[in-house]
Amino acid sequence: VPIAAKRDGQTVDAPDIERLVAEYAGGALGDGPMAAFLMAVVLQGMDARETLALTRAMVDSGSTVALGDLGRPVVDKHSTGGVADAVSLVYAPLVASLGLACVKLSGRGLGYTGGTIDKLEAIPGFRVDLSVEQMRRQASQVGCVIAAQSPDVVPADGMIYALRDATATVASVPLIAASVMAKKLAVHGDLILLDVKAGTGAFMRDEASATALATACLAIARQQGRRATAAISDMSQPLGTSVGNALEVAEAIDVLADRRPGRLADLALQLAARSLSVLTGATPTDADEAAHRALRDGTALAAFGDLIRAQGGDPRVIDDAAAILPAAPVRIPIVAEHGGFVARVDAEAIGTAATVLGAGRHRKGAPIDPAVGIVLGVRVGDEVAAGEAIGEIHSRTPEAATAAAAAVRTALLFASEPAETPPLIYGWLATEAA
Amino acid sequence: VPIAAKRDGQTVDAPDIERLVAEYAGGALGDGPMAAFLMAVVLQGMDARETLALTRAMVDSGSTVALGDLGRPVVDKHSTGGVADAVSLVYAPLVASLGLACVKLSGRGLGYTGGTIDKLEAIPGFRVDLSVEQMRRQASQVGCVIAAQSPDVVPADGMIYALRDATATVASVPLIAASVMAKKLAVHGDLILLDVKAGTGAFMRDEASATALATACLAIARQQGRRATAAISDMSQPLGTSVGNALEVAEAIDVLADRRPGRLADLALQLAARSLSVLTGATPTDADEAAHRALRDGTALAAFGDLIRAQGGDPRVIDDAAAILPAAPVRIPIVAEHGGFVARVDAEAIGTAATVLGAGRHRKGAPIDPAVGIVLGVRVGDEVAAGEAIGEIHSRTPEAATAAAAAVRTALLFASEPAETPPLIYGWLATEAA
Repeated sequence: VPIAAKRDGQTVDAPDIERLVAEYAGGALGDGPMAAFLMAVVLQGMDARETLALTRAMVDSGSTVALGDLGRPVVDKHSTGGVADAVSLVYAPLVASLGLACVKLSGRGLGYTGGTIDKLEAIPGFRVDLSVEQMRRQASQVGCVIAAQSPDVVPADGMIYALRDATATVASVPLIAASVMAKKLAVHGDLILLDVKAGTGAFMRDEASATALATACLAIARQQGRRATAAISDMSQPLGTSVGNALEVAEAIDVLADRRPGRLADLALQLAARSLSVLTGATPTDADEAAHRALRDGTALAAFGDLIRAQGGDPRVIDDAAAILPAAPVRIPIVAEHGGFVARVDAEAIGTAATVLGAGRHRKGAPIDPAVGIVLGVRVGDEVAAGEAIGEIHSRTPEAATAAAAAVRTALLFASEPAETPPLIYGWLATEAA
Repeated sequence: VPIAAKRDGQTVDAPDIERLVAEYAGGALGDGPMAAFLMAVVLQGMDARETLALTRAMVDSGSTVALGDLGRPVVDKHSTGGVADAVSLVYAPLVASLGLACVKLSGRGLGYTGGTIDKLEAIPGFRVDLSVEQMRRQASQVGCVIAAQSPDVVPADGMIYALRDATATVASVPLIAASVMAKKLAVHGDLILLDVKAGTGAFMRDEASATALATACLAIARQQGRRATAAISDMSQPLGTSVGNALEVAEAIDVLADRRPGRLADLALQLAARSLSVLTGATPTDADEAAHRALRDGTALAAFGDLIRAQGGDPRVIDDAAAILPAAPVRIPIVAEHGGFVARVDAEAIGTAATVLGAGRHRKGAPIDPAVGIVLGVRVGDEVAAGEAIGEIHSRTPEAATAAAAAVRTALLFASEPAETPPLIYGWLATEAA
């Protein structure tokens, strides 16, 4: 019934959607009917109530994470995924140092958008499989937790995502929104903070489609009485300078140590300040100042050390990342062939090149190489001289390094006039007026 | 690749469609991707080349039936299915008596549109599982064969049809056309004769959609260099007077014995005359006269006897159907509650009532009761007196009979003025100019 109704462009009743998902999650319904329903949704859309019903049904397919009273306001941050996007590694300890608790349950990365827990696992000893009790204790004491999502939480989402991946039904705002928000609704915090990426390095290719996704996500939160805020941020070029798991941890440490200004630091600071302001009522100016101070005075970096120690990782990494993190045997410079102003840095191409090196995975469950990756120092608007070293490839083999360097050069466009720098954040949305 | 292309409304290359079907038929591709593709086809359509590619891929999934030279022109007749549609039982021996060979491979019925082989199996001893060699010999000697389709022929069609049934993807002209024509292309005859039904008792609810289906079928035949002719015939009311397997055999015998004039006889005669004219070059007038003569002089009825004898059935049925065919224990009259002119006989409602009695099956493989059914003598335009017996229920139990009689009465609408009689045939289409 729901399949035919959606096929015909009708609105499907919430109980019908809930039954469909429950039967699929329980094994009573096969891949065929669910895939047909998903394709009908891709082509016919879903309204806010249908999207909420799908989201709730996915939440109801498993257990939820009840955090209880942690003595701190709890924020759950989610990025829709980008290239050189180590924001979570900076954001979580930063907001912890500001008196909030950040509880982040994360999946592993797929494709060129690496997963936060993949990055953290580059730190020797780091554990991502935590019980709810461990998470609760750590959130209360340290103020931040980044753990792998339990298979008991929203299992229907994992099943449906795998089916969507195999059936060309990924590209749908309501389906993406339901998948994102089911994972957020399953964790009971005080604020859902979404970083919705827009650009060639993200699934949403432009500001308009990213805004549509953020709007759909916020509609779900609003209907469920959950507070949520979303930033639409730029992913037309890589956010930070490093793509690769250990490399991104090292970059995050540099940012937390206040020695790496730039777009990655700015975005983490703005997300943290907004979270503080929403959850504590601090003025935007005060919140912004507090966030910058936490980088300057070392408390944010110390919180990252506490997070790493609490999850079994080697905390010396925050003082000497190079000594503790795995390093790739081959390092070659990326040399600019042309001089001029950087007009484009194709984030998708950079991400793909890093995946080819082994930093990402093409299929679920595949191993990744924590040491390899790409460091690229230039951004749109920078001026570069021909022959200048603009970055570095970290690779297992010289052949792979040479190929990656060539791929990075192809990802760059130069112009004779300085190009306009894209904004860092296109805009903000929230479930309530600011 | 083909799934995403079809989702986006693009034309899919033939090799991609062929690979999709081959992988699905071979088990390498699961239900999910195929169901997503089918839903994308339902919503985005397929052009003639894509439909041909799908049809050919289904034919290539199994073996084909090479009839060779039978010494007679071979016609393969197919009806898209209707209520009280025993045309094949009349048509096959009728064209055999005219010097043609009719080779019909048929599936079992599903829902209220009964299958021809289900009907024939009401005759004691009748066998429908024949080897290709048996079919060839019988077609040559008797001139007609009606056998069950072998599971080796177009197996992908059966798999895809079952998936469509479970995924709300049945309603698609290109998918229906490919399913019909794959079965026709797998048999190598000289003419494909299609009887495409239009009306409430058929899948295609009106003349326009039936014409669209016929057009799509003929496009496939034309591209494959096969000769085909299609009649768009009315199914706004039941065609014959009997719905139910033994009852329809008895009615077909009455028609073949030239003692039951009416719409069933007229349609069988017109289809037979058209086949003769196309295959032998006889003028329409001569062909029509020959077909009527074959009923009058008993040769068509004799050919039916030969068919039954050749396939193991009791040939005495053509002389004394009541003695040979199974009979239901309960028979009650259907009495008109109202007087007036019959304005509507809802074919779907009549078919559904017969299915409830046990004459049809709701799911594949379910048993059917050959004896039960409905006889209804009135047609749109007839005048009926209140209290008049207008038909008879043949049932296992009195309760089921009473319910069926009530359902039939609900299926009838009366008016104070005579309604216009719907045409028997809306029109003809052919792969070549007549």
